[in-house]
Amino acid sequence: MTSRKIFLTEDEMPRQWYNILADIKMNPPLGPDGNPVGPDSLAPVFPMNLIEQEVSTERWITIPDEVLDILTTWRPSPLVRARNLEKALGTPAKIYYKNESVSPAGSHKPNTAVAQAYYNKEFGIKKLTTETGAGQWGSALSYACSQFGLECKIFMVRISFDQKPYRKSMMGAWGGNCIPSPSDQTRAGRDALAKDPNTPGSLGIAISEAIECAVTDESGETRYALGSVLNHVMLHQTIIGLEARKQFEKVGDYPDVIIGCAGGGSNFAGIAFPFVYDKIHGKDIEIYPVEPMGCPTMTKAPFVYDHGDTAKYTPLLAMHSLGHAFVPPPFHAGGLRYHGMAPTVSQLVCEGIVTPRAVSQLSTFEAGVLFARSEGIIPAPESNHAIACVIEEANKAKEEGKEKVILFNLSGHGLLDLAGYDRFFAGELSNILMNDDDLKASEAVFADYPKPAILKHD
Amino acid sequence: MTSRKIFLTEDEMPRQWYNILADIKMNPPLGPDGNPVGPDSLAPVFPMNLIEQEVSTERWITIPDEVLDILTTWRPSPLVRARNLEKALGTPAKIYYKNESVSPAGSHKPNTAVAQAYYNKEFGIKKLTTETGAGQWGSALSYACSQFGLECKIFMVRISFDQKPYRKSMMGAWGGNCIPSPSDQTRAGRDALAKDPNTPGSLGIAISEAIECAVTDESGETRYALGSVLNHVMLHQTIIGLEARKQFEKVGDYPDVIIGCAGGGSNFAGIAFPFVYDKIHGKDIEIYPVEPMGCPTMTKAPFVYDHGDTAKYTPLLAMHSLGHAFVPPPFHAGGLRYHGMAPTVSQLVCEGIVTPRAVSQLSTFEAGVLFARSEGIIPAPESNHAIACVIEEANKAKEEGKEKVILFNLSGHGLLDLAGYDRFFAGELSNILMNDDDLKASEAVFADYPKPAILKHD
Repeated sequence: MTSRKIFLTEDEMPRQWYNILADIKMNPPLGPDGNPVGPDSLAPVFPMNLIEQEVSTERWITIPDEVLDILTTWRPSPLVRARNLEKALGTPAKIYYKNESVSPAGSHKPNTAVAQAYYNKEFGIKKLTTETGAGQWGSALSYACSQFGLECKIFMVRISFDQKPYRKSMMGAWGGNCIPSPSDQTRAGRDALAKDPNTPGSLGIAISEAIECAVTDESGETRYALGSVLNHVMLHQTIIGLEARKQFEKVGDYPDVIIGCAGGGSNFAGIAFPFVYDKIHGKDIEIYPVEPMGCPTMTKAPFVYDHGDTAKYTPLLAMHSLGHAFVPPPFHAGGLRYHGMAPTVSQLVCEGIVTPRAVSQLSTFEAGVLFARSEGIIPAPESNHAIACVIEEANKAKEEGKEKVILFNLSGHGLLDLAGYDRFFAGELSNILMNDDDLKASEAVFADYPKPAILKHD
Repeated sequence: MTSRKIFLTEDEMPRQWYNILADIKMNPPLGPDGNPVGPDSLAPVFPMNLIEQEVSTERWITIPDEVLDILTTWRPSPLVRARNLEKALGTPAKIYYKNESVSPAGSHKPNTAVAQAYYNKEFGIKKLTTETGAGQWGSALSYACSQFGLECKIFMVRISFDQKPYRKSMMGAWGGNCIPSPSDQTRAGRDALAKDPNTPGSLGIAISEAIECAVTDESGETRYALGSVLNHVMLHQTIIGLEARKQFEKVGDYPDVIIGCAGGGSNFAGIAFPFVYDKIHGKDIEIYPVEPMGCPTMTKAPFVYDHGDTAKYTPLLAMHSLGHAFVPPPFHAGGLRYHGMAPTVSQLVCEGIVTPRAVSQLSTFEAGVLFARSEGIIPAPESNHAIACVIEEANKAKEEGKEKVILFNLSGHGLLDLAGYDRFFAGELSNILMNDDDLKASEAVFADYPKPAILKHD
């Protein structure tokens, strides 16, 4: 019997996160006056210990024991050799995936949710607010809050709330309170509803609601938690790639190609950043963040300063953006329906260290079904974007007759996303593309904003 | 950091199943004439290689490499020390659980589904039919069939089909065809519908439909697969307890109390039988199969000869039974809504080797919510029965001031059962009990059948 999974013991888990800010140069976030924002201006939104982490340039940041302890509920996650998928594709490539679907919430999101809940608890915070798209992040934060005894309130993008009724139940099982966004509980929500009472909602609007809900709590005991985009979120996810590197060492292998789907950027950053470190230091690797053609942030939109949310509550971030007012079409990978992209990932795209790819909705579900029937696990629609790209690369390796090593991140399972598969099987889904005129229009909102500098790492 | 999970490597997986028929005496299955049925009479229903396994009295049966290979998709499953649950209960007991929720279908069921699909494939079978209650078994068999290229048709008990729409999608993702039972596709189904067009269905009816569908296929290439009750199913599940025994050895511990929920008996058998072997050979252990008060097979019903299905297609089995015509009330643990109990488990109950317990529906959901908020994993409603019993035992240990070691089987996660949690939180669930008059009436069907002998192991 050849082994399928490469495990680490709990003792072998990484004890530090990798902070990519030590190795690349970044444009600073800007305030309304056009000047870099200081840590203090973020204090109403995040606890100071997380703000310090957000701006830190230390390369290695120690993972607190209390966080590691909760992570062992499912970590280290297995690195799996996808032999059955290889066989189904008839490819000479060796395909490995990091299985992040084994967490209680079913995705990579708890890696940062647990850390954020811990740091908020340490800072004396009693309640967290957040937004969620597909529901993965809201579930993860509800779970994490239950582990540390914090309250949790989640604004869920309405289209996902309607498509995935059991996400609310899941958050409820952990004690979280989930409501559809836009809601009438915030000014941002009421504005969005006034503009379009039938809006499917967007992550941008939901973020605005959650931030508003946190900063307007006069007790001072509520903060906001973000599931992607920010530096400290990427940092917490690097445990994925750090584990994978150790696992590859165990079998004497190393990836030539690394692939992760990218909505806000966090699962991609998690698997890729530790290998980006290797690439910056000389390794020859191809690294692909994969996005939907229906929300082509990296492949079509410019690198600009824009807000992270629709109501412009966040500072201006240097990133690829379709414009903060952009409401993505209602495709089924809710976690990838975000107008922007993490500033760190955007910077890597600008420098050409990582190469963005876009895939069509139908190809992603085809990929997911092939994966389910060969490898057994039904993937989340988001993860299917990575798998579609893996299949392209594996087929390329077949054409070229090369035994490439491909690594991808299985960011989550699709057991709460089966309605999307239903619609795919029923032939109700189509490829959702953006035309150039729509793109131009959506990007008008940042026309007058400052422009980020073109930076290069040393 | 104290470790939470005890892992085995794939190399350390058990290479043989434990067959309890080597260690206990059993009443034989009887045919319509009242005489023991020979293997040949089962040949239209099961492939001969599985029939041989069903009647084998070899203590150790080798697990084929092809089966082990697929099992490594998720096995060995972790043995987990439930420290957070211990803390929440303030108990001196040490609580361990075997986490069977990590399989692709989310339960223990794939352990036997993979084996059955393999043996059918080996025998030249092209298509399997089966029934499913909560949907766990149907999902597992769809998954297993996808791994071996077999067709799969599933009759799903109507109330579960309606309560859990995404189970059908899940089976579909693996290529399985799931229809609600009773259906109009079989005589058994049409009879049930004629009797009560609004019947919620039952496992007994669905089994009849699936058997009929298999034996009436004139190509001879279809067989039936059962997810519980039979000896070979119990056999395949013993990998759970065999792994657990090895894992306990690794940490130098051993359970005083073993707990599993029991519908047909297979997840209970899986965790318990290897320890039953130890108990028969002198170990002092308490072993509790736990059933719902709404379907009290072991705690209220007699040990008799009865059919395994409503239409009386199966031989007479010596077991605890509420009567083959019994339609259990519509509580949410669909996997426990079966009128009988595995003959092997029933025999152990008769001999007093295992001690059945019954728990109320509300206590099971309370237990599940406590588990979700302490240990993080949202359990299946079936598994909540085990957890409710664990909590009783842990509280008893607290009263007695004893540091007992409790082991239970977390048979599955509840991510496809969130509607039940919703109804629990909404206060819509109640405790469903059986009154003695109803029990008497349901048992009238086997009044004239032969009576099993009272047997004792050597």
